[in-house]
Amino acid sequence: MNFPSRLVEDAVNEFAKLPGVGRKTALRFVLHLLRKDPAEVEKFGSTFIRLRQELKHCHTCHNISESEICDICSNPRRDPATVCIVEDVRDVMAIENTNQYTGVYHVLGGIISPMDGIGPGDLSIDHLVQRASSGTIREMIMALSTTMEGDTTNFYIYKRLKEFNISVSTIARGIAIGDELEYADEVTLGRSIVNRVPYEKTIAAK
Amino acid sequence: MNFPSRLVEDAVNEFAKLPGVGRKTALRFVLHLLRKDPAEVEKFGSTFIRLRQELKHCHTCHNISESEICDICSNPRRDPATVCIVEDVRDVMAIENTNQYTGVYHVLGGIISPMDGIGPGDLSIDHLVQRASSGTIREMIMALSTTMEGDTTNFYIYKRLKEFNISVSTIARGIAIGDELEYADEVTLGRSIVNRVPYEKTIAAK
Repeated sequence: MNFPSRLVEDAVNEFAKLPGVGRKTALRFVLHLLRKDPAEVEKFGSTFIRLRQELKHCHTCHNISESEICDICSNPRRDPATVCIVEDVRDVMAIENTNQYTGVYHVLGGIISPMDGIGPGDLSIDHLVQRASSGTIREMIMALSTTMEGDTTNFYIYKRLKEFNISVSTIARGIAIGDELEYADEVTLGRSIVNRVPYEKTIAAK
Repeated sequence: MNFPSRLVEDAVNEFAKLPGVGRKTALRFVLHLLRKDPAEVEKFGSTFIRLRQELKHCHTCHNISESEICDICSNPRRDPATVCIVEDVRDVMAIENTNQYTGVYHVLGGIISPMDGIGPGDLSIDHLVQRASSGTIREMIMALSTTMEGDTTNFYIYKRLKEFNISVSTIARGIAIGDELEYADEVTLGRSIVNRVPYEKTIAAK
């Protein structure tokens, strides 16, 4: 691409570093910014700088936080004996949105994926084991995705946690609410039959 | 969405202002930035601030430029008597990439679109007429898109330019090079037959 100015080229390159953004989309973003008020663009740029400077990771659960300990870990109404293990911050947000979970979290920061060069040492698994060894945790719920990498990570964590007196569970997999049986894939449908739940439990959840 | 921090929410809102970016994509961008080095994010944010502060629009052709007159208008090897009328800066870049055009440009900043509330007064058409009235321009080439809005804008400009002794042309529409005739739409194929060109001209272009 022939850019009309070095500044435009720099800005396109910066936007193109974002995941899923190519150079054409990046140029669209740049031209959009050029049509805005300078004060608005100033706010746009400085928001990200502030974000990165002021945001930390919680020392307990690795969730993003404005202080050393995040709002969830420091909330006295959350149950610190139940820990939900998730891949990243988006999963915490998704579970929080359900308003169904009252325990705390542990954010791994990814999943084991040899293809991408991510091993157990790159994740916060050692810290998870350390939390488990404190003796205050009753249950750990694994809420990772059902990919091969997710299953591998689940199994690895399960083996590391075996020595402690902690019940390890995974979130339920089955037919989504509102889905029709005939269109469900066999693996999911099979799993939902094997892992059937007493009817009284489904009434209590409502 | 329940955001873990006000800073994250602000950053998501800023990204979501970009065209075609929803809140889920914006959150993905924010989490991407959080994984980067603070210095890198600092550069990311300040690039856009600098861009907006230092970039101007060329006084002659309205192209984006680092000085009052852009590199194309101030280039003595470009023919100032031929003006190509385009919708926005992306079109200038697309034509420049062909290396086939040696004239100058006039960037309208949009096209006439009553549906979006854009009238002739919102575009740089008055300034185009003013350039035409200077008497130094021989030809104006209209290179707008072939939508209804593009056709309307073409016709409006054509009427405004009629009083001057300037030949007004539009770029050729026809079957793209490499395309097969049987898959071409009828309007394009019909136009390419009506506007056929002497064979010698196509050899000269190579």
